[in-house]
Amino acid sequence: MFRRNYSSALLEEAVDQLASLPGVGRRTALRLALHLLDEPRENVEQFAGSLVRLRNDIRRCPVCGMISDDGVCPVCNDTRRDAATVCVVESLRDVLSIENTGQYNGLYHILGGIISPIDGIGPGDLNIQPLCDRLAQGRITEVVMALSTSMEGETTAYYLYKQISRFPVKVSAIARGVGFGDDLEYTDELTLGRSITNRQPFKP
Amino acid sequence: MFRRNYSSALLEEAVDQLASLPGVGRRTALRLALHLLDEPRENVEQFAGSLVRLRNDIRRCPVCGMISDDGVCPVCNDTRRDAATVCVVESLRDVLSIENTGQYNGLYHILGGIISPIDGIGPGDLNIQPLCDRLAQGRITEVVMALSTSMEGETTAYYLYKQISRFPVKVSAIARGVGFGDDLEYTDELTLGRSITNRQPFKP
Repeated sequence: MFRRNYSSALLEEAVDQLASLPGVGRRTALRLALHLLDEPRENVEQFAGSLVRLRNDIRRCPVCGMISDDGVCPVCNDTRRDAATVCVVESLRDVLSIENTGQYNGLYHILGGIISPIDGIGPGDLNIQPLCDRLAQGRITEVVMALSTSMEGETTAYYLYKQISRFPVKVSAIARGVGFGDDLEYTDELTLGRSITNRQPFKP
Repeated sequence: MFRRNYSSALLEEAVDQLASLPGVGRRTALRLALHLLDEPRENVEQFAGSLVRLRNDIRRCPVCGMISDDGVCPVCNDTRRDAATVCVVESLRDVLSIENTGQYNGLYHILGGIISPIDGIGPGDLNIQPLCDRLAQGRITEVVMALSTSMEGETTAYYLYKQISRFPVKVSAIARGVGFGDDLEYTDELTLGRSITNRQPFKP
């Protein structure tokens, strides 16, 4: 930050912490730290407090694993949604992405991660048993897998499929292929290859 | 965030707070909040704590107003620097910018703001008296004004000049003109006009 060693330990620490956020480099972190330094004390305390409360006080919906301030989440409680369809995703982030499309009206099930032996995450660490409990109730007719196509994502989907297949539900997966508006020239070979293999009836 | 009203009050609050940072929009704020949500509790508490400590525990150098963990700041204490020259700036940000040039080896004086009647900031709210005290000691021979060219900056510079002129010091100001590498075509008229009026002897 300073060319010579002039800085303050408190400032360095705050910059280090801010720079640990995704997409925040040290220059931006310094700008943010200097901004906070100019703010009134109460504002900074409120700012910091809201982050700690977010992390410590937020609850998970006992049904789907979504964040929820209290008990069953508003998505699970929304009677306008199709309670017979459940979309399985890795995280809340994915729920927000799918909600933004406006194309899905079923419920969700958030695993809270994917099976990753390297990171020491096994099936027992994920929100899988509650999914089986939901399926055992017999009201769900379709499970839509919306997991990533990484090795971990595929492993998780396969494991889930084995667990789910004992229930009388249809298991589907989101369509993979060349994105709308994408040039074939710039599409990776795997995606393009699969999109040819999985070609669909033409709908004019 | 959600198209329908599904969100959590805690998440909304954290996103609001993060979005109040300069250069952080609501999308980025949401990304940061979700990141913090996935972090271990201790990390989030440490993160928040470092920001509160930065704001509450940081001290100002009694000589120049620079941030300082304890007593006189390292810049004022650095015997390798030219203690006869003092550069007057608005904020710590400006000190960092000037230090980054590597072209200045004197000391600083941080006003902590500029005179701005609209914001209710008068001369008494700024770190001006300590500058007079420094000058009264008689070791400073030059004061370099490095304030902004806004109306408030000019007002502050003029006020300072009146206060300083009773001391036997040279008062200078940083050079204004067309930036290095800038096209004349895209330089604003005021800057270009002043750069012609204040033309300097050509040094081949």
